[in-house]
Amino acid sequence: MSEEDIFSAFATHERWIGEAMKEARLAADKGEVPVGAIIVRDAQVIGRGHNQVESLRDPTAHAEILAIGSASGHGENWRLEDATLYVTLEPCTMCCGAILLARVRSVVFGAADQRAGAVVSTGRLLDGNPYRQHIEVVGGISAGDCGAILSDFFQSRRD
Amino acid sequence: MSEEDIFSAFATHERWIGEAMKEARLAADKGEVPVGAIIVRDAQVIGRGHNQVESLRDPTAHAEILAIGSASGHGENWRLEDATLYVTLEPCTMCCGAILLARVRSVVFGAADQRAGAVVSTGRLLDGNPYRQHIEVVGGISAGDCGAILSDFFQSRRD
Repeated sequence: MSEEDIFSAFATHERWIGEAMKEARLAADKGEVPVGAIIVRDAQVIGRGHNQVESLRDPTAHAEILAIGSASGHGENWRLEDATLYVTLEPCTMCCGAILLARVRSVVFGAADQRAGAVVSTGRLLDGNPYRQHIEVVGGISAGDCGAILSDFFQSRRD
Repeated sequence: MSEEDIFSAFATHERWIGEAMKEARLAADKGEVPVGAIIVRDAQVIGRGHNQVESLRDPTAHAEILAIGSASGHGENWRLEDATLYVTLEPCTMCCGAILLARVRSVVFGAADQRAGAVVSTGRLLDGNPYRQHIEVVGGISAGDCGAILSDFFQSRRD
């Protein structure tokens, strides 16, 4: 990859993480912990989701799960082999498992989750996984902005 | 625990795994890989689910996820702290994560899943988890019958 290609990939990642942040803000508007995700294939958004654990009264209703569900219903089959998941926060154990099952090609996340992130923070569940899949991972894209959406939300709840 | 209590607990587990097997058979009837799950609280079934990945075109539509979703909508809040998940096959990475997020108290499974099971076979994701939860796990209840539902299904697809 040339330097130019690397900068171009980075700009693309920032743009899509920006779309995922819009989803996170929708979660905040509902009083949900603000995490958002989108699925992109061929430069098109094919799935979107934001955390809705409280609204749907369902602990599995994380942004990534809802985005994967909506993207998988989009095409002819549910496999997302050529797709990238963009998410504002590092995925947890459940969402790493869902990423593997959906056969997502690559994952780009914003802020790390020291408490429950399972990509790099508390485990490395996408590496050497039981399905023997290779998943490209990029972390830290617009991490400050993604983290600020969360910290602003928790600050406003404390006030 | 007295010997009598142990036998009584075992009989209870077998009974509920039998209910989960009914769900697995519903999956088989739809041409889905036959895995079934139920959630039990206070000796009542409060959630049921069977694998519907193909029908719903959603790789996250595992029996456990659907059972947790249905049980969580059942009560006043989505937490399943006093509940037990019974499932015919050892849960995968995604479902272990969902079990932790749902705060299920205990998990009873039938057959082990050498390929993708994440409770004992390819990992031990419920032990020493990032959420510091203690989850009781019992495996191998009616394992032969639970496994036979799966092997019969794959055999009939090959024929």
